[in-house]
Amino acid sequence: MHPLRIFSDSRLTEDAERLLREGVAPHSLIRARRVVSSVLAKGEPDPAFLEAEIAFGQPDLADIERSERLRWVHLSSAGYTRYDTEAFRSLARSRGLRLTTSSHVYAQACAEHVFAFLLAQSRGLVPALRTRTPNGSPEWERLRAMPRSPSGQDILILGYGTIATHLIGLLQPFHARVSAHRRQPKGDELVPIVPSDRLAEALGRADHVVDILPDNAGSRGFFDTARFAAMKPGAVFYNIGRGTTVDQGALLAALRSGRLGAAWLDVTDPEPLPEDHPLLAEPRCHITPHTAGGHHGEVETLVRHFLANLRRYETGADLVDEVNNR
Amino acid sequence: MHPLRIFSDSRLTEDAERLLREGVAPHSLIRARRVVSSVLAKGEPDPAFLEAEIAFGQPDLADIERSERLRWVHLSSAGYTRYDTEAFRSLARSRGLRLTTSSHVYAQACAEHVFAFLLAQSRGLVPALRTRTPNGSPEWERLRAMPRSPSGQDILILGYGTIATHLIGLLQPFHARVSAHRRQPKGDELVPIVPSDRLAEALGRADHVVDILPDNAGSRGFFDTARFAAMKPGAVFYNIGRGTTVDQGALLAALRSGRLGAAWLDVTDPEPLPEDHPLLAEPRCHITPHTAGGHHGEVETLVRHFLANLRRYETGADLVDEVNNR
Repeated sequence: MHPLRIFSDSRLTEDAERLLREGVAPHSLIRARRVVSSVLAKGEPDPAFLEAEIAFGQPDLADIERSERLRWVHLSSAGYTRYDTEAFRSLARSRGLRLTTSSHVYAQACAEHVFAFLLAQSRGLVPALRTRTPNGSPEWERLRAMPRSPSGQDILILGYGTIATHLIGLLQPFHARVSAHRRQPKGDELVPIVPSDRLAEALGRADHVVDILPDNAGSRGFFDTARFAAMKPGAVFYNIGRGTTVDQGALLAALRSGRLGAAWLDVTDPEPLPEDHPLLAEPRCHITPHTAGGHHGEVETLVRHFLANLRRYETGADLVDEVNNR
Repeated sequence: MHPLRIFSDSRLTEDAERLLREGVAPHSLIRARRVVSSVLAKGEPDPAFLEAEIAFGQPDLADIERSERLRWVHLSSAGYTRYDTEAFRSLARSRGLRLTTSSHVYAQACAEHVFAFLLAQSRGLVPALRTRTPNGSPEWERLRAMPRSPSGQDILILGYGTIATHLIGLLQPFHARVSAHRRQPKGDELVPIVPSDRLAEALGRADHVVDILPDNAGSRGFFDTARFAAMKPGAVFYNIGRGTTVDQGALLAALRSGRLGAAWLDVTDPEPLPEDHPLLAEPRCHITPHTAGGHHGEVETLVRHFLANLRRYETGADLVDEVNNR
């Protein structure tokens, strides 16, 4: 394959920058005028973009549209909301443009994050870490009686992809009853798939409801008043998908009414929530600031994942984490 | 078997009390004048004790010594420190007195508690739950880069028993390198056993050191300055055994010097620590108030475990959680 030009607007550590510069050879690297600090922020228009055949990061949609050379976009995020439109798909189809994500980079960390949420909840860690109550006190008796093992509990996952499959693996030793909901079942799922018309029923059985939905037209406000009302009283709700998939007013009401036992969120809408947002004052609502996908060496892993896909691209092999634009 | 008299000083819920009264039949139940509120508190002398063949709870040692009828003590705790003396063993041998514990009742909950500690640590949950820092801020970058998966890490368990075997099962999906130290290896262990003369070396390799040691003459102050100094810089220390197994001054110094990355303790000495104890002010020291063994329905499980052993006792079958008094 003759040398290509690779445009990247990703903000990298020094190590990751070196890894990328050395790893792209024999191709050349074009660095954006301005790097993108967060995988959720979008890139800016950049004239140098028009020279590139490959883009790695969060390229600007107008740049993509103007480019006559671009063949492949590799996103630095697991989600691809900005590119999940009919307009983009039709452009991609007509130009033969391929789209891949960094899903695998974040999946294990995301799965471990929501798993840590679930364990912390089931052991009552948040209240227990806050007290030094003596053995035998009424508060102690309450804390001792609070934990419930995930063993034999019912866990429903919304959104079946790389994160869900990792999470299912971590749950294995607990012999929990795990099921999942997926828009388009493929038949290769590791757990029973709940069809849309049985979802309310499944929500009514679940002790833990795990939202890993991406942000798109079909998922926005997915968890609304009706869906929270369908849940088993005392159920625990987790969100490591996208904040927009939850009607936060409905979530707040479900927590206040006691319908939900607790909520653990890594994503909100907006991020962060304004300081006076009522969810921040809810004692049973626990929020981390979109750190679920993070892990030691993340940026280096991101670059390695792109480079591994670049080697596949060179040889014509299947790309990992490719989005079907049909 | 002719009906026996069973003495119990355990504090029970209404449900557990009914379960016990109904379950002991055809035997009779003698309730202590004063019930014991914590499994770590000892019972008081009670004249009614002398009529019993079986004791369930935390019977007073002087009562046991005076009793001519007593054949079997079933403790409501997993530990048996008060009865772990040569004097008790010699008395037990001469009288044919058997001793069982409630180890199995607490093992799963204890294993899940320390596992929740480990997951919370590896995902950086404590600092992440405290902030609403925006995506892309320096604090956010720091939080994103902090988590380290237990995958492929080195985990050393001190004290190999029912809790350790549960914990090893939970760790299985992570493919961590788990090893354990045990006073008297039996050959049936699920992980490599580290002998005493290789312990310093093993401490130097471990990313996570899990103390599940019971309290006895050999374990008191086990984690001292030398043992903390032998640990890998940045290692994380967990204690769900007994507070007395740790030299808390040495622990504090190891946290302050940065030798230890963090400490997660469910047990301390004393419990709770006095309000002005310096460990409480250490930002990387996380303490729960001896709630590791607690779980929903615990007291009922405790009674069921005793009753199941009572059925075995009636038929002469092996007792579960029996302590060898030889």
